[in-house]
Amino acid sequence: MLIIPGEILKDINFPADLKKVERTKLPQIADELRQYIIDTVSVYGGHFSSSLGVVELTVALHYVFNTPDDQLVWDVGHQAYGHKILTGRRDKFHTNRFYGGISGFPKRKESEFDTFGVGHSSTSISAALGMAVGSNINGEPKRQHIAIIGDGSMTAGMAFEGMNHAGAMKDANVLIILNDNCMAIDPNVGALKEYLTDITTSKTYNNVKEDIWQLLGKMSTFGTSARKIVAKVENAMKGALLSQSNFFEALNLRYFGPIDGHDIDHLVSVLEDLKHIPGPKILHCLTVKGKGYAPAEKDQTKWHAPGLFDKVTGIIQKKVYDKPMPPKYQDVFGNTIVELAEKNDKIVGVTPAMPSGSSLNIMMKAMPDRAFDVGIAEQHAVTFSAGMATQNLVVYCNIYSTFMQRAYDQVIHDVCLQQLPVIFCLDRAGFAGADGPTHHGAYDIAYMRCIPNMVVASPMNEEELRNMMFTFQLDEIQKLKTAFTIRYPRGEGVMPDWKRPFQKIEIGKGKKIKDGEEVAILTIGHIGNYAVKACEILEKEGLNPAHYDLRFVKPLDEMMLHEVFQKFDRVITVEDGCLQGGMGSAVIEFMIDNGYSAKVKRLGIPDRIVEHGEQLELHHECGFDPEGIANAVREFSEASVLL
Amino acid sequence: MLIIPGEILKDINFPADLKKVERTKLPQIADELRQYIIDTVSVYGGHFSSSLGVVELTVALHYVFNTPDDQLVWDVGHQAYGHKILTGRRDKFHTNRFYGGISGFPKRKESEFDTFGVGHSSTSISAALGMAVGSNINGEPKRQHIAIIGDGSMTAGMAFEGMNHAGAMKDANVLIILNDNCMAIDPNVGALKEYLTDITTSKTYNNVKEDIWQLLGKMSTFGTSARKIVAKVENAMKGALLSQSNFFEALNLRYFGPIDGHDIDHLVSVLEDLKHIPGPKILHCLTVKGKGYAPAEKDQTKWHAPGLFDKVTGIIQKKVYDKPMPPKYQDVFGNTIVELAEKNDKIVGVTPAMPSGSSLNIMMKAMPDRAFDVGIAEQHAVTFSAGMATQNLVVYCNIYSTFMQRAYDQVIHDVCLQQLPVIFCLDRAGFAGADGPTHHGAYDIAYMRCIPNMVVASPMNEEELRNMMFTFQLDEIQKLKTAFTIRYPRGEGVMPDWKRPFQKIEIGKGKKIKDGEEVAILTIGHIGNYAVKACEILEKEGLNPAHYDLRFVKPLDEMMLHEVFQKFDRVITVEDGCLQGGMGSAVIEFMIDNGYSAKVKRLGIPDRIVEHGEQLELHHECGFDPEGIANAVREFSEASVLL
Repeated sequence: MLIIPGEILKDINFPADLKKVERTKLPQIADELRQYIIDTVSVYGGHFSSSLGVVELTVALHYVFNTPDDQLVWDVGHQAYGHKILTGRRDKFHTNRFYGGISGFPKRKESEFDTFGVGHSSTSISAALGMAVGSNINGEPKRQHIAIIGDGSMTAGMAFEGMNHAGAMKDANVLIILNDNCMAIDPNVGALKEYLTDITTSKTYNNVKEDIWQLLGKMSTFGTSARKIVAKVENAMKGALLSQSNFFEALNLRYFGPIDGHDIDHLVSVLEDLKHIPGPKILHCLTVKGKGYAPAEKDQTKWHAPGLFDKVTGIIQKKVYDKPMPPKYQDVFGNTIVELAEKNDKIVGVTPAMPSGSSLNIMMKAMPDRAFDVGIAEQHAVTFSAGMATQNLVVYCNIYSTFMQRAYDQVIHDVCLQQLPVIFCLDRAGFAGADGPTHHGAYDIAYMRCIPNMVVASPMNEEELRNMMFTFQLDEIQKLKTAFTIRYPRGEGVMPDWKRPFQKIEIGKGKKIKDGEEVAILTIGHIGNYAVKACEILEKEGLNPAHYDLRFVKPLDEMMLHEVFQKFDRVITVEDGCLQGGMGSAVIEFMIDNGYSAKVKRLGIPDRIVEHGEQLELHHECGFDPEGIANAVREFSEASVLL
Repeated sequence: MLIIPGEILKDINFPADLKKVERTKLPQIADELRQYIIDTVSVYGGHFSSSLGVVELTVALHYVFNTPDDQLVWDVGHQAYGHKILTGRRDKFHTNRFYGGISGFPKRKESEFDTFGVGHSSTSISAALGMAVGSNINGEPKRQHIAIIGDGSMTAGMAFEGMNHAGAMKDANVLIILNDNCMAIDPNVGALKEYLTDITTSKTYNNVKEDIWQLLGKMSTFGTSARKIVAKVENAMKGALLSQSNFFEALNLRYFGPIDGHDIDHLVSVLEDLKHIPGPKILHCLTVKGKGYAPAEKDQTKWHAPGLFDKVTGIIQKKVYDKPMPPKYQDVFGNTIVELAEKNDKIVGVTPAMPSGSSLNIMMKAMPDRAFDVGIAEQHAVTFSAGMATQNLVVYCNIYSTFMQRAYDQVIHDVCLQQLPVIFCLDRAGFAGADGPTHHGAYDIAYMRCIPNMVVASPMNEEELRNMMFTFQLDEIQKLKTAFTIRYPRGEGVMPDWKRPFQKIEIGKGKKIKDGEEVAILTIGHIGNYAVKACEILEKEGLNPAHYDLRFVKPLDEMMLHEVFQKFDRVITVEDGCLQGGMGSAVIEFMIDNGYSAKVKRLGIPDRIVEHGEQLELHHECGFDPEGIANAVREFSEASVLL
């Protein structure tokens, strides 16, 4: 479907075109840009309301600054659709997030206007500061470096680290634009958010100011000398309240705002001014997530990435199925933790800013005192969990696999070293899909299994996820002095009737899925279902490989592996994770340590960046979709014919 | 040598004993505690000035609070010597940091008074908040949870994340004690530090206050009505300046202070008061690092961990050698980066708060505009480096292996995904020694080699470190679109005459150290020198293994490995890193992928927590000291006799 740009927008292919437009036309361009995003996302999908919220800001930034020589860094980047459309990618924009299409995030490879690749939050200040310092060293002190960061991203410690350094680098031309819409994907949380609201509504400041102004007013009736004094007091007050009083000024960042982020004319004026103020500074913009599309303004979490929708009615398309469908792993997690917590009052849940994504929101609603959204703060989430575990609570800490990279030290240092039995639920493990390489959970098996005092498990289906969650909270298992990782993918499982009675799983116990001959397939997690399909394909060809599901990468089921290597001299391992140091690597470590010498073919994510696309497309590309697994078996079987 | 405690201290074994002492005696106890630390550390070594700085605070905390039911969390923990001495470990204190002795850091296994194990900075607020929330859930809302954190540790984002959450948890009994001494190991840096100094000297606040007070004073001469007004203005001003104006109050933490952290009587009074104020709060204490020992007060970095010294003269013992000794790898790094930067003006250096530990201070002194201490902020350090790399600078980012765990996501997401050629120098890789498990750099090979676009190298000696540093900054190598890791251990190398002309090393090229028969030893990094010694031992027994130094774990030297596996059916791999997913694992991945089937014995750090001790003691314990390697060769050779 061809998306038609508005009458001015159609001639704007690059910021150079934008700059030729009269300033009075900017509101119209913003409207057309907003409409183009609505038109496209409603039929092609993608992130939605974040980009709508920064349309005016996007136009103003490219209008005022000399991009790409002046450098924009969009924090997280799912708000950068307008930026992409204005920087040479309008005609490709319908390919956004599709396999082979443009990325849903800014990406250096894609455009020189994308100065820094993003996806994870809160990197923009550090990156922009590095650029600014680099520009100075390169003798280009006039260049501007602008980080556009949401109030949600400000809660991550990394943003604070960047500000703390920026405030001490007085020559660095960094402009931080705080895009304050009170939202992450879910509503933003934490003390800073309250503070920002406070500045905005100016409660304290305005109250005090009014009190004093009023009093000073009265005093000025005392005559000229008093009036002078009043003027001096006023100035001193203003200085004290407006500069030192501000959180950001405390970090040595000159603070401007708050201003209306949808008043494009005012934005242009303010940015023009700021361009001429050297050094690190922050502009506080108030925006509305979903601005200009009523349903999105109303339910901001739902419309963060709504899927396809009817742009006129605002009705989001739902897939209709003619039979019961399996649930998402996320919902299995969300419902199961509540079910367990109802029986075990020691259970608590933690999420860093992903209540809806992880489905912990179910527990947050049911048991608000025992489920915590700590904001975009993975490091804190893990150590906060560790702190609770020292009080004998049973903590489920749910973090996306890719975001757990942010808390790696805390997993090692605060949890595993201390042998605290925190249960980590690694959501979106394996390929994340359309979000692409910044979000793929590719490395977790490798980086988790090398830590002592850590159990690493992955369920092949919904029932196993439930049973793992059930097992790890049992008293006798919590006493094992080890932490737990359960990794599972984004999206649907395979069992429509998933809510079965809990059963304890023995730690480190795998499962034989089927007997077979010649070749054994070893899988871990959901991807095991591909092996089941592969076996069905192969059966028709007269091939009959065995299939074992490891369930645990650590500890390995040694008894099962002895059986495998005693029976089979050709083994295929399959995992939705990196090949270097992953599950297959664990299996061959076992094999070699135990003196076996089978031929082993390892399937998994290769040692290169895999781009975005549907999960199955990426699995196919990497050769471990059902057909890929079947091929590996065929090759091994042919090899045996040749022997 | 027996250390004799003072006359009151000798009867204080636990806080219960302390509480029986009259309050007027507390200064004497503090003096005796300080003396005991000086007496012990001067002859047994260890961290020094941090503990001296909190002697009064330590005594006051245990005097006022009901430890261990009230819970102290010492951030980093090298300031907790006084705490250890007062909590049942005085008689073991001389074993501090020795193999088999007590840990240099608080540790849950060691004492119930050590409520949370520490070592890395900035975890205390998150942990204490978790404990406080846990106490509430457990129905113990009266318990106090106290995080004692330095101003250096406050620069890490994790501390901010903890405060941001704490400020929103109004029922959590968390007291944060900001131990403000303007120092990390090196002088603290960043905007927050300037702000704290600002509060302390109260420049802005006092200036404005004085101006206004003076004016208001004049006004009050206008009569009663004016005096009333003045009083109201004063109150409003005070409210505005003292609450809203404060960085911490902005985060919803009630702020108290700054107070003198060496006035023990005042400390006790203030802490008594704070005990009865519920919810999250912060007490700002000003202390002097090294307090009470003049040389340490004077040169705080040098006396952070001075080694042995004469407590009377303050002269630090220097080892005397009768021949030239090899330099520390750290000094090779520090001198070499300057040497390279003198020729290549694109070179910059980055350290997160370890200028003296890493020896980047040499460059910071020589080229202050091109070497950056960013504070305790590993995440920022990496992404700041990435930002500079986008400006075509050649960045050496030096981070201790164990602290790189803090920036894992940034390495993946901001550097490798974008193929930026940042050169990571991982100092203190392998066993850290006396600092123990929190500081061992055990996992880096596993967690780095699984990332695409990353070269992982490790030098066997000083010359190789120089040549790797030289090679990776060359234009043609920087253009390879990959990041680089160079890991090297704490301490001395092996080459007294290390400063040799630079030579380019081919990426992924290993080195045959010696030819041999029957068994091949493959090593990576400095530990290769152990294999050299093992070969010397074995030669006398008529055994002659070959020895290859991989130099690169990634990419592997495939040609060399083909040679190895074609010639040898028994291979031993040796690494100062974890066995799960480490170098040995990379070698067997190669072997299996290429259809070889040698017997492989992997030596390295086993899958358990290894405690503290001298590096060689730990290598011996884990079986990869020279004798351990020799044993592995003997076993393989015997096996061959049996064949």
